[in-house]
Amino acid sequence: MTNPRLQSLVDRLGPDAVLLDPDTLAPYAKDNKTSGLAPIAVVRPASTEDVQATVEFCHERKIALIARGAGSGTVGGAVPEREAVVLDLCRMTEVLWLDEMSMTVAAQAGMITEDLQRHVAKFGLSYPPDPASADRSTIGGNAATNAGGLRAVKYGVTGDYVLGLTVVLADGRVMKTGVQTRKGVVGYDLTHLFVGSEGTLGIITELTLRLVRAPETARTLVASFDDLESCARGVQAILASPVLPAAIELVDEQCVRAIQEAGAGQVAFQAPFLLVEVDGRAAVVDEELAILDEALRATGAVTRVASDEAQTKALWDGRRAISESLKKVSPAKVSEDITVPIAKLVELLRGVSEIAKPKGLTHLAYGHAGDGNLHVNVLFDPAVEGVRERVEAFRGELFDLTLRLGGTMSGEHGVGIAKRPFIDRELSPVSLEMHRRIKAALDPDNLLNPGKIWPAPMGDSA
Amino acid sequence: MTNPRLQSLVDRLGPDAVLLDPDTLAPYAKDNKTSGLAPIAVVRPASTEDVQATVEFCHERKIALIARGAGSGTVGGAVPEREAVVLDLCRMTEVLWLDEMSMTVAAQAGMITEDLQRHVAKFGLSYPPDPASADRSTIGGNAATNAGGLRAVKYGVTGDYVLGLTVVLADGRVMKTGVQTRKGVVGYDLTHLFVGSEGTLGIITELTLRLVRAPETARTLVASFDDLESCARGVQAILASPVLPAAIELVDEQCVRAIQEAGAGQVAFQAPFLLVEVDGRAAVVDEELAILDEALRATGAVTRVASDEAQTKALWDGRRAISESLKKVSPAKVSEDITVPIAKLVELLRGVSEIAKPKGLTHLAYGHAGDGNLHVNVLFDPAVEGVRERVEAFRGELFDLTLRLGGTMSGEHGVGIAKRPFIDRELSPVSLEMHRRIKAALDPDNLLNPGKIWPAPMGDSA
Repeated sequence: MTNPRLQSLVDRLGPDAVLLDPDTLAPYAKDNKTSGLAPIAVVRPASTEDVQATVEFCHERKIALIARGAGSGTVGGAVPEREAVVLDLCRMTEVLWLDEMSMTVAAQAGMITEDLQRHVAKFGLSYPPDPASADRSTIGGNAATNAGGLRAVKYGVTGDYVLGLTVVLADGRVMKTGVQTRKGVVGYDLTHLFVGSEGTLGIITELTLRLVRAPETARTLVASFDDLESCARGVQAILASPVLPAAIELVDEQCVRAIQEAGAGQVAFQAPFLLVEVDGRAAVVDEELAILDEALRATGAVTRVASDEAQTKALWDGRRAISESLKKVSPAKVSEDITVPIAKLVELLRGVSEIAKPKGLTHLAYGHAGDGNLHVNVLFDPAVEGVRERVEAFRGELFDLTLRLGGTMSGEHGVGIAKRPFIDRELSPVSLEMHRRIKAALDPDNLLNPGKIWPAPMGDSA
Repeated sequence: MTNPRLQSLVDRLGPDAVLLDPDTLAPYAKDNKTSGLAPIAVVRPASTEDVQATVEFCHERKIALIARGAGSGTVGGAVPEREAVVLDLCRMTEVLWLDEMSMTVAAQAGMITEDLQRHVAKFGLSYPPDPASADRSTIGGNAATNAGGLRAVKYGVTGDYVLGLTVVLADGRVMKTGVQTRKGVVGYDLTHLFVGSEGTLGIITELTLRLVRAPETARTLVASFDDLESCARGVQAILASPVLPAAIELVDEQCVRAIQEAGAGQVAFQAPFLLVEVDGRAAVVDEELAILDEALRATGAVTRVASDEAQTKALWDGRRAISESLKKVSPAKVSEDITVPIAKLVELLRGVSEIAKPKGLTHLAYGHAGDGNLHVNVLFDPAVEGVRERVEAFRGELFDLTLRLGGTMSGEHGVGIAKRPFIDRELSPVSLEMHRRIKAALDPDNLLNPGKIWPAPMGDSA
């Protein structure tokens, strides 16, 4: 039954680390949203050495290799499209060291983000990057996609916390990048070349991460608005104030309905609303909430501060449940994570309506409004004739609008398979050529996640 | 008189933009510390197009090209070592646009950092990166070296504020990298591949920079200690507190003496001391200073809050004048910008003494202690026989100590010529090979700042 080409890999790593059963392999054909093919094998390494052995094996035989964290991505970045081995890093979950005084930690790439957050919290420290999928996504996957999240408006994205990496290169050699310190300028910034490269340049196996002192407390304010454009003006008012919140999330009416229909929580606030979290020293947070409250009321918002921990938790749990709730209440959806300059938020929301309406599409928006990063969704029933064409047309026009406003097609999800056909709208031919040259320099045989990111002809011929 | 090979460049850009007079060229043979050769010509472009024309000219003729900002670097990054044209970007000083609401600005690479800071301050905004040379260094030079500075402990380094670049590539083509938004994950992070690459991969001509809301106020606290190791423990105490200052600078006795001897200011505080700046909302800063004051007193420090603006300014002017003051009071010095994890600061300072003492060398330390980034200096008289050998031995042992403590040889100055001989102590052979492959991918003819960064055999044969 076993593919005879794979036998030596089984011999080397043991049968428990190499999955070959078709039923076991099937789920690896998709991520949280995008489907492809099942891999010919899944390897579950326990160490950088295991990863090395797998990469060497694939390199010798010119078999494509795809790294995968929790598979919580949405653009198909970890999904095979051709014969490939998948490297599932979920067993590499160890904290390697923690330096409390220097506020740094090193961990294996398969560690769940929330587990890392919990671990460092024991030392009074915080790992701020906080993708909505933090309870299941891995820090390695977060780094490979440069994941954003809810706290980026104050704390930045995953890449802002990655100081150094252990990477297995395409030929199986191990390279350490970066430093353990806040500053470091010896050589090129290879660390951030791998961050966000979606597994196309090397396999991240270990990360050295910067931490911050955990804030003493956090409180949440809800600001309801009459309509989405007012909501966007509320975001602008917050960012013009002297207080920088940890999170500024936008939730529209459709999302609230989905949360409630999906049984993911009760929302007692009028939508659209902003969820605003202020964190810091306890003595300061109340005063800062009052400043924001005033700024928001001045824009016409109805505001309320979450009264206790239970209410606060319910609000944020509801926010985090939006993506899954929408899946439950709609036969299908597309969700884009376009990002525009804060000054263009109102124009973006207006433009989205103008694109969706004539196409008869149900659209909605939620997400990281404080970063200008909105998850614009279209809900549809694929059984309706011609709807897919209309949805695709919507996507193209949405990207064009975003780019016209000085934005980017993806703030945090990446390109993978799903956005590949559009990438040359954002990146120039010169940029794509330099991308391809760097890919060829680090992975000359095009074995690591081949075809991802680039429009097919470029990726495939690299 | 004119080198006939250069005539067509003069024809293209005009005689004012192309300097050929040997007396004018001579100063371009050195930066703030390191000497090389004078260039065969200096081109002073006014635009990206001028830069393009120059790069095309050099590319066609295979002439080496070196970008230079203000020449305030210390490691020879902008200094020719062979026949080369220098591209002096000091005329490219324009602000291209400023988006107040989105808190972003775009400017030409030759703009003086302090001029940019002043410009954005008019809009209530702040560009936080703040190298001690901010009054003369350029934002393009800051980006090319990923310059740090005094506020990095809270605000990070130059690279943390660079959202996007306009780069002229080695063959003269123009490429835009990055985004205008806080988040963006479409394609590789080419922006930060150029940041810190010391002009070896492309010429940065324009930058899009992230800004922050300007803090309402800032106050300064001085904490005097009995000795340097206690000073280091004071740094650790600050970072263990709930307050993160904007700056934590260490100044030792030798530095105070130099400031006073050089006439750069009077220092009324007992050294060694820490200069600690707290910024933020006015209502909060006093309270936060009190928290730090208590934390520092608990370590045995004698503390004083700067009483007024004049005293505050005098303190920081003195701090910024240290490097130049040391130059004035000593026939020669070497200054390294090694960086270690905060937990290793005491061990570092102890180790430096242990290395310097048996060699009979006068050493001192000052700088960005809050980042673990200290400027360790040795003052010497080159006329003394054998002193250079002792100084070089000191440097090698200092770097080894730093690396043993988990640090880096350069926190913010870069490699250039000065640290090139040591780079393979920090970077592995695999890492150096990947560096060389990337260099070859982007600059196949090795025309951009050739030989910099790498140990000579690699850089030269690239």
